[in-house]
Amino acid sequence: MKQLETTALRYSNGALDVLDQRRLPGEVHWHRCQDGEDLVALIQGLAIRGAPLIGVAAALWVGHCAERDDERDKLIATISQLRSSRPTAVNLMNDLDRLLNQIDKGADNATLVEEAIAIIDEDIALCVAMSEHGAALLQDGDNILTHCNTGGLATAGVGTALGVIITAHQQGKNISVWVDETRPLLQGARLTTWELEQAGVPYRLICDSTAASLMAQGKVDSILVGADRIACNGDFANKVGTYSVAVLAKYHGIPFYVVAPQTTVDLNCMHGDTIPIELRNANEVRGASGSFGSCTWSPTDAAAYNPAFDVTPAELVSGWILDSGVYTHEQVKAGALVSGDHL
Amino acid sequence: MKQLETTALRYSNGALDVLDQRRLPGEVHWHRCQDGEDLVALIQGLAIRGAPLIGVAAALWVGHCAERDDERDKLIATISQLRSSRPTAVNLMNDLDRLLNQIDKGADNATLVEEAIAIIDEDIALCVAMSEHGAALLQDGDNILTHCNTGGLATAGVGTALGVIITAHQQGKNISVWVDETRPLLQGARLTTWELEQAGVPYRLICDSTAASLMAQGKVDSILVGADRIACNGDFANKVGTYSVAVLAKYHGIPFYVVAPQTTVDLNCMHGDTIPIELRNANEVRGASGSFGSCTWSPTDAAAYNPAFDVTPAELVSGWILDSGVYTHEQVKAGALVSGDHL
Repeated sequence: MKQLETTALRYSNGALDVLDQRRLPGEVHWHRCQDGEDLVALIQGLAIRGAPLIGVAAALWVGHCAERDDERDKLIATISQLRSSRPTAVNLMNDLDRLLNQIDKGADNATLVEEAIAIIDEDIALCVAMSEHGAALLQDGDNILTHCNTGGLATAGVGTALGVIITAHQQGKNISVWVDETRPLLQGARLTTWELEQAGVPYRLICDSTAASLMAQGKVDSILVGADRIACNGDFANKVGTYSVAVLAKYHGIPFYVVAPQTTVDLNCMHGDTIPIELRNANEVRGASGSFGSCTWSPTDAAAYNPAFDVTPAELVSGWILDSGVYTHEQVKAGALVSGDHL
Repeated sequence: MKQLETTALRYSNGALDVLDQRRLPGEVHWHRCQDGEDLVALIQGLAIRGAPLIGVAAALWVGHCAERDDERDKLIATISQLRSSRPTAVNLMNDLDRLLNQIDKGADNATLVEEAIAIIDEDIALCVAMSEHGAALLQDGDNILTHCNTGGLATAGVGTALGVIITAHQQGKNISVWVDETRPLLQGARLTTWELEQAGVPYRLICDSTAASLMAQGKVDSILVGADRIACNGDFANKVGTYSVAVLAKYHGIPFYVVAPQTTVDLNCMHGDTIPIELRNANEVRGASGSFGSCTWSPTDAAAYNPAFDVTPAELVSGWILDSGVYTHEQVKAGALVSGDHL
């Protein structure tokens, strides 16, 4: 398989290295992936995270297994193993389905390798397309609020929501960013700040609960978030807290955009209510884990409730920024997400 | 001065000990207060926090200084020093004004000691009154959401919002509590959980950003919060994130009550916009500080924005639970908070 390098993935000489995002921003540590089980643990432990990146990393691994001549049954088992690593982000399932379809059609291993590379190349191109569609919606001087991390660390390319922001900055628009820290795992505080510093985009980090008063003070012009799964009606699941931001945006009359590639649309999902929401370990709420080790601030056995995602209903979305363009409510109601026009 | 013991303050043999709330829940550590400067540092550092408790602790210290025969000018200087420790909570100013008024009227030191004791005794009684008014609004089986800490650690008595909750539990109502962790200083995660465990009230700790999706799922029946300052029109300042909860409550049609003693009403403040909001150190957002030491998860010099409080407009409040009763919008509009009926 050809040599390949993204912000968070490297493939060369038949080995996959992944940037361990748990250790950022304190340490840039590349982990060599040992086997499928290792990759699943990296995804579950959030060393690899971000809906598009999870799919891309899984596809890359299957391509790797195909290139080293794993047999059909073994490849199918690997796909099945990877599919179960996280339940909410649908890119993983969509990307693995593409590979499984090739196997079902009797494709040889060389074709599987090509398909895996195509998935990665396409993700990069989709990021460019989304970023340009989205950047056109941002004005010079805008204060943008974003939640979680949706940049180069979350995709093979420039990112989804954060890709839009960085692209607008590179176009010379004078924008600044309010970064939600994004509890419990602090992807905003740890990863989005790191990417924005590297890109030279002005930002300020805030507690998630501070966003509302900034909106009330007129200090937020636009909100951009990513998605882990978009239902056909436009409802979408994303990192917990996204729904909160969406309601607050609605109340304050602030545009709220979701930015995602076509691989995030789940054609089998009609409504957000049916999206499975991952419940994670209570320790993530009791204390902090991630790049900074681990510390506990609540009673050590405190009862906690820790969903990783929430669902934002379509009614709270101002626009759906996909690689194929920006979709309005009318278009989504008319079936734009299911028509396949953009697929 | 008589011996006195509350959840967070102890006065005996002429010495004031305060429970260092930064070290909870890991450690129950009582700190002997050395002088006015020490007390100011304890308040600014959040070893002593909670709007009513700050006022009570300051009054207790002035009573202590009066008993040890500090002269008039020195007492006035101590009051001035304490007044500047934190800007948002008005109880501190109201309680110190009571003592200053006595001095202005020529009261002797024995009278000042009596006034300080009266402030503390009244705070305890006000907590009981609020708790009974508020508990009457809660139904058996209710799931209550609360933000920050408003219990015995925040007052001389049973608390404000948390006093209501614990009282309802003691009345035999089968209630459970969603505890907002309350970033950045995690008073919910550290202190409210600790108090609820001691009181035997079922609770679950959540990230602040999780509250919205619980409301959407119908899992929040009622919301109770405290206040650091209430304007005459019913707007109020409280720990940052309170406004966010209030907007979310409005959107989901969930009752949202503010619970506070009369000492929290600022008769000189007509509107929430004029309440000063304390901006705190960015390090509180960059990492964690408090009982668990200190750790950083964002880039160490990350730009951050860290207001300690926000303002919730009256229109988002379902009722004002004061010690004198529960006030409706109509009553507040008619001037109930300024009429002095409850003063």
